[in-house]
Amino acid sequence: MSAKLSDSQREFFDGKNFAHLATMCPDGHPSVSPVWVDLEGDLIRVNTAEGRLKTRNVRKDPRVGISVHDQEMPYKMVSVRGRVVEITHEGADEHIDSLAKKCLGQDSYPFRTTDEQRVILKIQPLLIAGQG
Amino acid sequence: MSAKLSDSQREFFDGKNFAHLATMCPDGHPSVSPVWVDLEGDLIRVNTAEGRLKTRNVRKDPRVGISVHDQEMPYKMVSVRGRVVEITHEGADEHIDSLAKKCLGQDSYPFRTTDEQRVILKIQPLLIAGQG
Repeated sequence: MSAKLSDSQREFFDGKNFAHLATMCPDGHPSVSPVWVDLEGDLIRVNTAEGRLKTRNVRKDPRVGISVHDQEMPYKMVSVRGRVVEITHEGADEHIDSLAKKCLGQDSYPFRTTDEQRVILKIQPLLIAGQG
Repeated sequence: MSAKLSDSQREFFDGKNFAHLATMCPDGHPSVSPVWVDLEGDLIRVNTAEGRLKTRNVRKDPRVGISVHDQEMPYKMVSVRGRVVEITHEGADEHIDSLAKKCLGQDSYPFRTTDEQRVILKIQPLLIAGQG
């Protein structure tokens, strides 16, 4: 089972919008927090860091939810249920810089700490709801 | 176990911001979508409608996550893990109108359909992360 974002749904992830990623905590409680996103082919890419709850959670359970609303028209939204199919450090520093460029208009990610290791989570959409 | 929002965390929910609510689907998959929110004392109130996935989900499993980012300063955020402690129709129509006033500046909720029954979900925070 997989699903493909339509062109209009892709715009939400291509645009200057924050998404919110829900992951499963080991106790079965969902946790959700804002993330920067973009697309790589049909996959949704989230950039986060090692050690964070969302990273630990998806290593144990790859099932996630991700939703995004249009920053300009906030009642327009897309909600995706998906599965993390790849977790990689490769290109993660360059990726967070490109997201900082997209979302903040800055050439590099301004919140980097010396000891953090950035991670890309790649999400395969399984079910998609919302404008499309 | 419960947690209390600080004054600065309350501002995220009082403000003109959309939140994203994560609920648990019966198959154990998290689902997340944008919602309008405000506060009633120490509880977070979400307004939704009967029949929607999130409403069905929280009737079966009250564990939720909810996160909100500041519309003006999107890297400022609060993430709450909580429990739905009340589900009520009482005052839900007036509540969605007041949220439309807050979020859209309109006197009444413009997306109402004739057959929908609005619902308020009241969430007790259990764990809080983020600015504050």
